[in-house]
Amino acid sequence: MTYKLVLLRHGQSAWNKTNQFTGWVDVPLTEQGVEEAKRGGRLLKEKNVLPDIVFTSLLRRAINTANYALDEADRLWIPVQRTWRLNERHYGALQGKNKTEIRQEFGDEKFMIWRRSYGTPPPDINPDDQYSQAHDPRYNEADVPEAEALSNVVARVTPYWETDIKPELMAGKTVLISAHGNSLRAIVKMLDNLTEEEIAKVNIPTAIPLLYELDEDFKPIKPRGEYLDPEAAAAGAAAVAAQGQK
Amino acid sequence: MTYKLVLLRHGQSAWNKTNQFTGWVDVPLTEQGVEEAKRGGRLLKEKNVLPDIVFTSLLRRAINTANYALDEADRLWIPVQRTWRLNERHYGALQGKNKTEIRQEFGDEKFMIWRRSYGTPPPDINPDDQYSQAHDPRYNEADVPEAEALSNVVARVTPYWETDIKPELMAGKTVLISAHGNSLRAIVKMLDNLTEEEIAKVNIPTAIPLLYELDEDFKPIKPRGEYLDPEAAAAGAAAVAAQGQK
Repeated sequence: MTYKLVLLRHGQSAWNKTNQFTGWVDVPLTEQGVEEAKRGGRLLKEKNVLPDIVFTSLLRRAINTANYALDEADRLWIPVQRTWRLNERHYGALQGKNKTEIRQEFGDEKFMIWRRSYGTPPPDINPDDQYSQAHDPRYNEADVPEAEALSNVVARVTPYWETDIKPELMAGKTVLISAHGNSLRAIVKMLDNLTEEEIAKVNIPTAIPLLYELDEDFKPIKPRGEYLDPEAAAAGAAAVAAQGQK
Repeated sequence: MTYKLVLLRHGQSAWNKTNQFTGWVDVPLTEQGVEEAKRGGRLLKEKNVLPDIVFTSLLRRAINTANYALDEADRLWIPVQRTWRLNERHYGALQGKNKTEIRQEFGDEKFMIWRRSYGTPPPDINPDDQYSQAHDPRYNEADVPEAEALSNVVARVTPYWETDIKPELMAGKTVLISAHGNSLRAIVKMLDNLTEEEIAKVNIPTAIPLLYELDEDFKPIKPRGEYLDPEAAAAGAAAVAAQGQK
């Protein structure tokens, strides 16, 4: 008996395109993002990886990616669970800022620490900032961070994995998680038991399903899982790694 | 304390457009249907009728109508429940058939009985018919009808209303149900305590939110509820009533 888990990063969003830090800001998919999501769904169908339940964040780019993909895969009717715990890492005061400008203003070192360090969050956002979620009706105020490092994301994703996602896998369901670069990296770190240095180098491309088959101890049978389109995934991961470099 | 319930019939589907009996066949929205759904969502936002939870059928035209509407209303993140019990009435052997041709072949009387009688279902569909759902993985085989009258729809919707929908209303949530002409008529019949003759005359237009405020006994404060765009609703209902007449 193996468990099947599919991770899906949302397609291109409006701010991926304009190169802005997004975090918890609820920006839409671009047209290209919609097409990417549909393509992800066709891959699910072609490879016969058919989700029985889908988990999403509370952000429309992940929700709509799931919707477009599942519609293409003829699985739009499966049960849905949404949670803030799968949201993107909160980028604090960087939310809304242009990545290239931040890099130029603060330098390469700070930029890379904010993007890829495990434990150092960016500066806190002011609750009255236009890009703060302190007053967003979808969240309990206590759950809204002022900034997060990846370690904080791991800390909020892990309990949900244990209480909500694992039981569905144990019930024999193929589970799809439609979420974000960093909430998915948190899951990858946990599944593959990666070090802080190892996870820093992991870049997840947009909208290419990443399949993990897990043994009964929830250990990956193939470390790092398997992208349903490996070539496109390699190109996509390189593009993510290069962000903010122009 | 009043309860707020919003009924939303899906936007135009491919077979609304081609004038075919649809029932449980899982046809997509047309482009016009997508636009109707978005317009429904803008009405929710403009009138400040903001759902806290959404119930849908297992059919993509209702699911996508909810998705497009909720995205426009900035409520795509709310919890979702899907159930076959909110599916359209199963049209039996008529599924896939052209409405005008059926009317010409079988005559006005039979046509109107199949469309609007309370207790007489159309002829059963053969389980091996291309438009049967007997082998569709989304259903338990025992739940798939061979044909339904509106009375059968009432019988399957009512228990779900009691066990799943009512508790959400009682918890103070604004509930959105995105479903179909006949599953919504079943709910309207129940809420307004209509006779079989009265419900026969009720036509629900596509994608215009119908708001019911209910008292503590779940009786409508305003009988028949209130469309968020009454003029468009009247025109839409007349168009539904005229189906198959050309």
